[in-house]
Amino acid sequence: MRVGLFGFGKAGKAVATILLQSPDVHLCWVVRKSNVLQHRSVPEFLGIVDEEQGVIFSKDEWPVQQLLDEHPVDAIIDFSSAEAVLAYGAEAAKREVTIVTAISAYPPETVDFIKNLSRQTAALWSPNITIGVNFMILAGKILKSIAPYTDIEIIEEHFKTKKEVSGTARIIAETLSLDEMSIKSVRAGGIIGKHEIIFGFPYQTVRLIHESITREAFGNGALFAALSLMDRGKGLYSMEDLLIPYFNLR
Amino acid sequence: MRVGLFGFGKAGKAVATILLQSPDVHLCWVVRKSNVLQHRSVPEFLGIVDEEQGVIFSKDEWPVQQLLDEHPVDAIIDFSSAEAVLAYGAEAAKREVTIVTAISAYPPETVDFIKNLSRQTAALWSPNITIGVNFMILAGKILKSIAPYTDIEIIEEHFKTKKEVSGTARIIAETLSLDEMSIKSVRAGGIIGKHEIIFGFPYQTVRLIHESITREAFGNGALFAALSLMDRGKGLYSMEDLLIPYFNLR
Amino acid sequence: MRVGLFGFGKAGKAVATILLQSPDVHLCWVVRKSNVLQHRSVPEFLGIVDEEQGVIFSKDEWPVQQLLDEHPVDAIIDFSSAEAVLAYGAEAAKREVTIVTAISAYPPETVDFIKNLSRQTAALWSPNITIGVNFMILAGKILKSIAPYTDIEIIEEHFKTKKEVSGTARIIAETLSLDEMSIKSVRAGGIIGKHEIIFGFPYQTVRLIHESITREAFGNGALFAALSLMDRGKGLYSMEDLLIPYFNLR
Amino acid sequence: MRVGLFGFGKAGKAVATILLQSPDVHLCWVVRKSNVLQHRSVPEFLGIVDEEQGVIFSKDEWPVQQLLDEHPVDAIIDFSSAEAVLAYGAEAAKREVTIVTAISAYPPETVDFIKNLSRQTAALWSPNITIGVNFMILAGKILKSIAPYTDIEIIEEHFKTKKEVSGTARIIAETLSLDEMSIKSVRAGGIIGKHEIIFGFPYQTVRLIHESITREAFGNGALFAALSLMDRGKGLYSMEDLLIPYFNLR
Repeated sequence: MRVGLFGFGKAGKAVATILLQSPDVHLCWVVRKSNVLQHRSVPEFLGIVDEEQGVIFSKDEWPVQQLLDEHPVDAIIDFSSAEAVLAYGAEAAKREVTIVTAISAYPPETVDFIKNLSRQTAALWSPNITIGVNFMILAGKILKSIAPYTDIEIIEEHFKTKKEVSGTARIIAETLSLDEMSIKSVRAGGIIGKHEIIFGFPYQTVRLIHESITREAFGNGALFAALSLMDRGKGLYSMEDLLIPYFNLR
Repeated sequence: MRVGLFGFGKAGKAVATILLQSPDVHLCWVVRKSNVLQHRSVPEFLGIVDEEQGVIFSKDEWPVQQLLDEHPVDAIIDFSSAEAVLAYGAEAAKREVTIVTAISAYPPETVDFIKNLSRQTAALWSPNITIGVNFMILAGKILKSIAPYTDIEIIEEHFKTKKEVSGTARIIAETLSLDEMSIKSVRAGGIIGKHEIIFGFPYQTVRLIHESITREAFGNGALFAALSLMDRGKGLYSMEDLLIPYFNLR
Repeated sequence: MRVGLFGFGKAGKAVATILLQSPDVHLCWVVRKSNVLQHRSVPEFLGIVDEEQGVIFSKDEWPVQQLLDEHPVDAIIDFSSAEAVLAYGAEAAKREVTIVTAISAYPPETVDFIKNLSRQTAALWSPNITIGVNFMILAGKILKSIAPYTDIEIIEEHFKTKKEVSGTARIIAETLSLDEMSIKSVRAGGIIGKHEIIFGFPYQTVRLIHESITREAFGNGALFAALSLMDRGKGLYSMEDLLIPYFNLR
Repeated sequence: MRVGLFGFGKAGKAVATILLQSPDVHLCWVVRKSNVLQHRSVPEFLGIVDEEQGVIFSKDEWPVQQLLDEHPVDAIIDFSSAEAVLAYGAEAAKREVTIVTAISAYPPETVDFIKNLSRQTAALWSPNITIGVNFMILAGKILKSIAPYTDIEIIEEHFKTKKEVSGTARIIAETLSLDEMSIKSVRAGGIIGKHEIIFGFPYQTVRLIHESITREAFGNGALFAALSLMDRGKGLYSMEDLLIPYFNLR
């Protein structure tokens, strides 16, 4: 699978590292906002020896049409900004290029725009694209349906400078129909990110815990998404949609 | 649902406490090995005020046939010994009384005997009957199918005097096709029981943790099993069988 | 060491169990409020075979003076109510009987009363008398002095019906000069009691965790206190005072 | 304090980052084995804007004598190899330059060599130089002396490819006089490093946990060591020696 990547910030670089190391995909290019590093090789920049993959382009260097014609890809992975999809979306959808975007928040009109694109191609949007977090949310939903009488609480731990409540914790709370008061936020030192869902039974406790180690986890999630969408048709998907089939045990 | 309980050791007493407090079942009697406390009321013994429930019988006091005729029940819950089912099984199955047994190990011929009973009635056998542990095993199975490349390890913690490796940990290892070397056993002080399955992804970690608080957790599991079997037909079931429908999200 | 125990509620019974099993003390008597079980043997009640220890008296049965004359003890352990010490304190102090009280809150005038008693005998008052919690508080104090730049947060988990913030968590916060906002309270199911102090360093995290299993932990703490006070003179002590010598490594 | 750093591998770079950011020290130079990046600025390489600090020298570029004369420092921090100290040690000790080395293993004759150096200057050698781990070891030692009857177990978790048992876990076991069987090693995915000491009391459990986030933790430890040694005289020190004064509460 040939892949193009939008975004080369901290998350984008981590995602590029994963894509370059995967035998299942070929990273054709990265489009970034700034023109620093223009035309440099991604593997060289990341210290990976692989001359054939990944050229870095600047956002303003190519009209998207020409980019997709001269450097065609099967999937676009987007870790850039909320505006990017407006630029590349129509051309990508026309070519039935799969779109995987991990932008944390889109304005409503952009969500509608993506929905429209999904009539022509497979598109996935997920603010948290790690496999672990999405698994945890679904597992939690199931345990709640088995034992609706349990008390559910969420602990999320992050680095001191993270101001707001974790978006992932909010999504967990929403999915499990919990009050925001159920989220306990710990802010301490350099903790990368830990989410814990506690199910209090009268005489036993179940804990589902997800710990982030580095941003590369986003890369594995995006890769999983892009590969899984190969077998799906047109339509708008979430990470949950891709995981649900694994839960159907019989 | 009218319930009879075999076994009044530590686990049996804890299970009786749960059954007495549930609005969904009526505990009709308890059969125990010794004749201490014979004809005493279970609620009185356990300090629960409820005069109508639970008389304690001694094992040798009644022929099972007469017991089931004079004190009919819809389900039998068995926390006694590996022999008990041989005594009550045939009479119970004939009357289509649901059988829920949590005996940790049966000789092969008794397993065959129970299989035979299950042609006439619904029977469930589960060495670990807590909801939490069985949920954890199924959730672990799913996560392994989603991410077969993860490294899976099991930590089980129990009180110092527990000699052997936890049976539950062995079942988890077996279900996830892990080597017994994957089980790390901690023995320290008075820890009631903790099981943790660690899924090591390259850049994230998922932990599924079950902590036992008291033996009453067995009671909730047995109660769940007995009630769930009401809607099932004849056949031999495991706790997994009863939980699987909750996993089918769509 | 001969010991008398005031209080035979849930905590008192658990403490009695520990005292009866210790080779270092002889439990002479228990004084309880109600006259239920009057003159019964403590070991018999608790199912421990030991005929020589522990008679149960009712509070109103004996004038304290006569009790201490006819059934002399070296130490009194008090898990009863805030009033009890007013009744036995003066007579105990006069006889230089060590006083260990674990009452969670005393009115200021009772605190003054105990301070006065401590001029005549060794007296210890500690609202949380477990060794683990008191160790954790002192260790936390030290780590804060080593690394004052760390972010410190407290998570306390208890059973659903516990309404207020854990008193132990408040004491930890106070000792470490933390805002009450640093305490995150989880209330779920039947969790007995867990306290966690998180020290967030920029690139590492230290966690001090205490988990309660049963109330018997109070008994071990009270026993430790009573035995440790044998080597101390008159004065008012806290659990911290008794633990501090162990921290002086050189 | 003027500091020179030996070693610019993964650990060395992380340590340099911390030193550059500290207001308490000035990183004068880094000596590395290879001559790649020779004469480049450390801050520039690490993406930190600070032109005045840190020039990178190659090992073979300078005789140590000339290096220390022309670029004098108050302390040397060594994250390079077991041989380096043999080259710089004598010249550094002669000038009473403090030596902080975090090399994981030295041959016995090098240990003797360092001991000799410590007659002329303050020298510290510690295979694990993080504050958290060393605090945890001392706290564990104290808790064992308070409650020698507890069962102590160690869990250490690291990335899959770490073959041997963690050296830190071995040191913990040794310090607490535990059998190597007490160490349970979990190897899973990309876990950076977690050490947990479990103290099993009969009715409570205490856990001391250290989690590594990144190698920069070594930098904070080395910095703490170098600064603490300013107030000490000549002699050979360990991290424990520097932490012990904080434990003397009275």
